[in-house]
Order: sequence, then C-alpha cells, then structure tokens
Amino acid sequence: MAEAGLDVEVDAGGNLLGRRAGTDPRLPSIMLGSHTDTVTGGGRFDGIAGVLAAVEVARCLPPARLRHTLEVVDFLAEEPTDFGISTVGSRSLAGALSVDMLALESEGRTLAEAIASVGGRHEAIRRRDDIGLYLELHIEQGPVLENEGLHLGVVTAITGIARCHVRVTGRADHAGTMPMAQRHDALAAAAEMVLALEHLWQDGAGVGTVGRLGVSPNATNVVPGAVELWAEMRSVNAQVLRQRLATFVETAQGIADRRRQTVTVTTLSDEAPVPIADHVQAVLADVVASLGHEPRRLPSYAGHDGNQIAKIVPIGMLFIPSRAGRSHCPEEWTDLADVALGAQALGEAVLKFDAALSS
Amino acid sequence: MAEAGLDVEVDAGGNLLGRRAGTDPRLPSIMLGSHTDTVTGGGRFDGIAGVLAAVEVARCLPPARLRHTLEVVDFLAEEPTDFGISTVGSRSLAGALSVDMLALESEGRTLAEAIASVGGRHEAIRRRDDIGLYLELHIEQGPVLENEGLHLGVVTAITGIARCHVRVTGRADHAGTMPMAQRHDALAAAAEMVLALEHLWQDGAGVGTVGRLGVSPNATNVVPGAVELWAEMRSVNAQVLRQRLATFVETAQGIADRRRQTVTVTTLSDEAPVPIADHVQAVLADVVASLGHEPRRLPSYAGHDGNQIAKIVPIGMLFIPSRAGRSHCPEEWTDLADVALGAQALGEAVLKFDAALSS
Repeated sequence: MAEAGLDVEVDAGGNLLGRRAGTDPRLPSIMLGSHTDTVTGGGRFDGIAGVLAAVEVARCLPPARLRHTLEVVDFLAEEPTDFGISTVGSRSLAGALSVDMLALESEGRTLAEAIASVGGRHEAIRRRDDIGLYLELHIEQGPVLENEGLHLGVVTAITGIARCHVRVTGRADHAGTMPMAQRHDALAAAAEMVLALEHLWQDGAGVGTVGRLGVSPNATNVVPGAVELWAEMRSVNAQVLRQRLATFVETAQGIADRRRQTVTVTTLSDEAPVPIADHVQAVLADVVASLGHEPRRLPSYAGHDGNQIAKIVPIGMLFIPSRAGRSHCPEEWTDLADVALGAQALGEAVLKFDAALSS
Repeated sequence: MAEAGLDVEVDAGGNLLGRRAGTDPRLPSIMLGSHTDTVTGGGRFDGIAGVLAAVEVARCLPPARLRHTLEVVDFLAEEPTDFGISTVGSRSLAGALSVDMLALESEGRTLAEAIASVGGRHEAIRRRDDIGLYLELHIEQGPVLENEGLHLGVVTAITGIARCHVRVTGRADHAGTMPMAQRHDALAAAAEMVLALEHLWQDGAGVGTVGRLGVSPNATNVVPGAVELWAEMRSVNAQVLRQRLATFVETAQGIADRRRQTVTVTTLSDEAPVPIADHVQAVLADVVASLGHEPRRLPSYAGHDGNQIAKIVPIGMLFIPSRAGRSHCPEEWTDLADVALGAQALGEAVLKFDAALSS
C-alpha cells in the first residue's frame, strides 16, 4: 500500500487501511477492499485477489486523476473466527460490532482484547457521509461464470442466510433385539430431514445444506437415540428464505411426529439478503461491456464484508471466475489473466464513479 | 460358587469356572453359564442374571442328585472389548480364538497378555466329548415376551450378524456458492442409504441398523464431501441375511451412481445364525409348560457366548422378559420374580437333561 502511494494505518476496527486524498476535499471517499485472511485448508484467492486488485488500482491511477479520496482496506477477520462471528473488521467499521460481540471469548481473551492486540481500538465508527461508495472485487467461489465461458460478473445481491440447529430425540435401543416396528431411530428421522431440505431447494431459488451432523450414542450395535444437525438455507429473496425456513421446520416436525420422536429447531442466525443498488450495477455493467466482456449479472451465494458495509453506504461487487467453482479448499484457483482483468475493471469503475458520484 | 459347593478355578481362557463331579464319571458335563461383564452405561441383568441363576441351581441341587458333572461358568469378556472382538472367553473354550485374535493390541498389550493377566493361559481347548450340553438363561433384551404377557421363552436360534463399513465419497463444496444441481453431497447420499436399509428390513425377517455415522468435513457451511457409516443386519435365516447384504450393497451402489459419487462397502464380519437343536428346544419347552407357563419360542437377536460354544456342543437357551425391551442402558430391568422363575426353569432343565442325556 505504501509503495502504491497510500498513507497506511490500522484503523479503529483493526483493519489495515491505505488512503490517498482526492482533488476535492469536500467529496466522500471511494473505498475499495476485501480481506486477506483465509479458512483453514483454504485457497489463495478468496479475499486476497480483491485486496491486491485494489492496491493495483491505487498504484496505476495518478493521484491527480481522482476527485474523491481513495481508500483501500484489508478487513480484519472476514472468515469465521474462534469467537463465533465473521466479518469482524467490516462490522466494526459499520458500527455493527455490538458490546455482546466484543465480549465473546476464545482461549482466555475477549474479542475486544484480540482487536486491540492487532492495533485496533474498536471504538471509532465511520460516519455515513464519510464514504461515498464501497467496491469489492472477489472470486465467484461458484461455477456460473466458468460454465458460461465468461470472465466478469456483476453482483446483483448478496445472499440472505438462515441457519438453524435441529435436535432429533428418538430412543436408543439394542440394534438386535428391538424389532423394526417398535424403534424410534433418530438417525432414520434425521436422514428424512436431510433429504427433505435438499428437495426443498431443487428449483434454483437458493440452496439448502445439512453440512454438519452428529449421532448419539454412535455405536454400530445401538439404534441411534439422538441426532443433532445444522441446517443452512440461502436465498437472495428474503420472502422465499423466510417461507422455506418455516416449511423446513414444519416438515421436520411432521417427520418426528410420524416416527413418534421429538424435534426442536433453534434458529441460530437469520441474515437478510443485501440487494445491490440498480444504479451501481448499471455502472459496473457498463464498465464490463466497455472492456469487451458480457456483463453477466448474478447473485453472490457467499457472504462478504459488503454485507456489513451496505448497512452504511452503497456497495458494488465484481466477480471473476473460480475454476470448477471450487473455493475454501486447496484447489481454489482463478486464472491470473482473470485477476488482472478484474483489477482493470475495478480501476475503470473507480474512474466512472469518480466522475459520476456527487456530480 | 464355592458356597454352592463348586470347586472354583480360572480356566485356560480366563473364565471363572466352578465344577462338581456327578455320580457317573463316564458322562460328560452339563455346563451352565453366562457372563458378568457389561457394556459402558449398561444394566444389571444382561449376563449377570444367567450366572447367578446357574450358581443358584448348583446351590439347590444336592450333589448326589446328578449323574453328570455340573459346571458353572462366568465367561471372560462377552461384550465387545477394546481389542475389537467379543465373547473372548467362550471363543477360547471353543477353540475359536485364533492366533491373529490373540495378537490384537490395546493400550500397549496383546489380548494374550490381557488374558494371562486375569489368570488364563489361552491354550487349553475343551474337548468336544468333555461337555454334553451348554445351557444359558439370559434376559431377552427385547420386548416380545413382555408384549405378550409371558414370562419364559425358549430360544430357537441365535441371530446371524453381518456388519459392513460403508464409505461414501462425494465432493466438499462451499454450501452457498455451489448450486444444488452440481453438488455431490455425500450426506444426502448416505441419508438415502440409511433409509434404504431401514426399508429393506420392514417385513420382520430380521433387523437392519445404521448405528454409527460420521460426516467430513462436518462444517455447517460446507457441502459434505465424505461420509462413513457402519451398517448392521441380523437374521436367523442365513439365506435371507446373505441376500439382503447383497441387496444393500447393490442399493448403495445405485444411490452413489445416480448421485455421481463413489461408495466402497467392506464386510467387517459375517456370522452365520446358530440354530438350536429341536430336541433341546423340546425339552426346554416341556420344562416351561411343566411350570405352568406358555413355552413361547423365539429367536435371539442378540449374540451370546452360546454362538461360540455351539461350535463344539449342543446348546440351549431360556429367555426371561426385559421391561419395555430395554437393554444396554441403565433402564434395563427384569422383575425379580422372573429371574427366580428363570433359575427354577434352568434347574428343572438340568434334571431333565441329566436323566435324558446319554441314556
């Protein structure tokens, strides 16, 4: 960042922030960014590509060229943390890091102490009129662009995510002596729920996953007495998400009733989708077209720092392809030519918004 | 055992053995027994009731009353051990403890060393003509007798058990960005297999259970990439057991194929059912009837030391009811009046066989 001519600091939220003043000090900033942390066993592009592209934009654009102040941010802890929450730095910036969250503990220290340990003060929130727009380049992490042979995507919305914990309670019995008709097999009930959730999302309106499941007592010769599972649903349509969460709960209850078992469903989180403003999408689509590419519009089914920043300012996102749609794994890959193309599109977008914003 | 007039020793297999000579030294022994070990979190009747009933029979029958030598055995380690096998002591007695089994290790010592540590020598096998008959009283561990309001059961056969390990390999993907239609969700495939096994055994010809299942990577936001599960099937009909094991493997393969995944099924054990001789059943049924009870004949869907002993001599088994069919849990219970009735039936059976055998 320093080599790209930015003044670098660690901001109040523990984010690494580079800044360069524009020619008109009355205008708010244009902020570019993403994150450089990664999941365990993850790849080398998720987040990192967006931060490097933003630095490259700063390096390539002459200081006198922009009216708006340019900010490049590498957000603290976008991925899930040991404290139980994700997008820590962008939450802080958006004023969405609650006192309860700051008090979350891991390995003997609070999240507030952890933020302080990297140089943050977890107190300053950016004012809404301080930033005019937040733009992020990110890998798609899915297969849509690659499948269609495209190189740039304009994100239409960031998915809503509902997560719930499901506890199925049947009865543990001897796996030999308890006849089939008299069993209360919690794993068989849970298996029906897994398949019901999969079925519920077959129409493409979003996705539903049981990614985590545990059996108790989990012994070969014992009929499962209880199962815990975690169900996740994602849709960019808030109403669809709400309805299907309700349908899933109803279906799980019906399965448990029919099998003479009990089920409790606890909603762990229910984040609404984040729509991206039409005028931001339109400018990004123009940029993509001007570079000779088809401006494919598509939703993001992953969460991003933009979920938080959208609480205070308009956001825009550009996607570049992920090979085979893989992400959060060592196979994660994006052709370097696409990373360069994405950086170019991000730079062109900055120029367009610099001309258009507050004009 | 000593108080009941038996000469007590630890035999070569580490079994606690009490013996009392009969009036005719040319006759083989009648052996009574069961086991006193229990599963973790198990109850107070599984095995123990049978050993105490056998000791009570020895205590009540005057030495001069029996022509045959009476033996009472408390078998070593009937339940699954840390070494990976069960019915250790009865295997030893039947000559079914292989060199490979004796070399199995747990916590730094071999099974052979563990047997030696309780006083066994793991070398002496009982000769076939040394024992005339083995009789065991055991709790049913299932609900059949209680459901029918009966107090004594005559076991017709001990179930065969086939166990297999199933590994389903799909592909781990981001649970948001990978569209439903492009997933290879190993848990969804495994869920179908769980339900297929349950369906396969709905007709009462035996039982099928997936008691143990593990998901990988088992994270809420990751499509499951692999699942391991352990499937168990039990039937007293050897042909049914063999056919359904094959059907299950075929079905699992079909599910994996349809979902573009791979599955490997490894048979871990395949024990044939142990039929109980008609003439032994007939004598036991006469005894039950002579005590004023209906001699319900039923199979045992649990394995027993009798599985091993049947390899060398005829066996017979009597069941007493289990409350609500529960076993291997703290709720395991048999009314004490039924335990006493079972001991009485066992004693009457000894007298009948003493008169009938070799006559």
